[in-house]
Amino acid sequence: MSLTDTHSSLKKILKDNIRSVKDFPKKGIVYKDITPLLNDRYLLELTSRMLAEPFRGHHIDYVAGLESRGFLFGTNLAQDLHAGFIPIRKPKKLPAETVSVEYKLEYGTDILEVHTDSINPGDNVLIHDDLVATGGSSMAATKLIEKLGGNIVGYSFVMEIEILNGRENLDQTIPFHSILSV
Amino acid sequence: MSLTDTHSSLKKILKDNIRSVKDFPKKGIVYKDITPLLNDRYLLELTSRMLAEPFRGHHIDYVAGLESRGFLFGTNLAQDLHAGFIPIRKPKKLPAETVSVEYKLEYGTDILEVHTDSINPGDNVLIHDDLVATGGSSMAATKLIEKLGGNIVGYSFVMEIEILNGRENLDQTIPFHSILSV
Repeated sequence: MSLTDTHSSLKKILKDNIRSVKDFPKKGIVYKDITPLLNDRYLLELTSRMLAEPFRGHHIDYVAGLESRGFLFGTNLAQDLHAGFIPIRKPKKLPAETVSVEYKLEYGTDILEVHTDSINPGDNVLIHDDLVATGGSSMAATKLIEKLGGNIVGYSFVMEIEILNGRENLDQTIPFHSILSV
Repeated sequence: MSLTDTHSSLKKILKDNIRSVKDFPKKGIVYKDITPLLNDRYLLELTSRMLAEPFRGHHIDYVAGLESRGFLFGTNLAQDLHAGFIPIRKPKKLPAETVSVEYKLEYGTDILEVHTDSINPGDNVLIHDDLVATGGSSMAATKLIEKLGGNIVGYSFVMEIEILNGRENLDQTIPFHSILSV
């Protein structure tokens, strides 16, 4: 097999291990469950490596992961890239001084927070989550990091839901990488 | 420096980077914040390695991490030990079929859940969280894994709050490891 064929075959194995769960969290939604990628020791490592691959050699100071599924592969990604890890959390979870951003959901709004001293102005930050749908929470994370003077140097996801256009809704000048498209 | 002295010095650096936050989450509590260990790229890797060290060479199929701070170092620990990772979550977060356990808090009760197909009977599981206080949530995690027929082969924490006796409240026949005591 060529390198390209092998990589395609490996991605297919990852995709085949995404579990579709009907009517979760509510009726009519088909939830894409990544827990089988964590459960299998080989797929855990493979997913982490495939997340890191396109950003090797880039200057990345921090990986910022979104609560709570962005914590799962986010710390492995950070360690693999020899970067620090920043948790971006829901309100009142981070104990020290924070900045926060409010953003729109389908119904209502939500808030994300980050520790004010997480980064220094000018630091390069890669945003990570398990899944990108419309890109709303990734945009909120972008605003948080920019409030602290950081540069967003990439977006990293295990999976994008293509029909929801997350990729198009984010800044087109910033590298975007998702291992899988569904 | 001897190896022992070096290890003690490294642990001291980790300890010095735990941030004490007064009156969080409520008045009178001094919260021990591990985010500085994630933030620094060297300490992220050092903490992960120190978590893995005592369990190298043990037969561990899975690391089970408790939502949500047990997700942070838990996946690195799993990858380092070439084990799979199992998320133990709060109610209604896991999409597929689950088993659940109710346990006591200081005031009231809480519930933890795990996917029913996370492990097979007889699999060896290491329980991980960032911090152990009274050991209540670790005991609940133990019961969950035992419901699925798994063997608990160790407890792994970044930090124990000595005065709360978590170590004594867990099964004394199972290896217990916490990098730091505060």
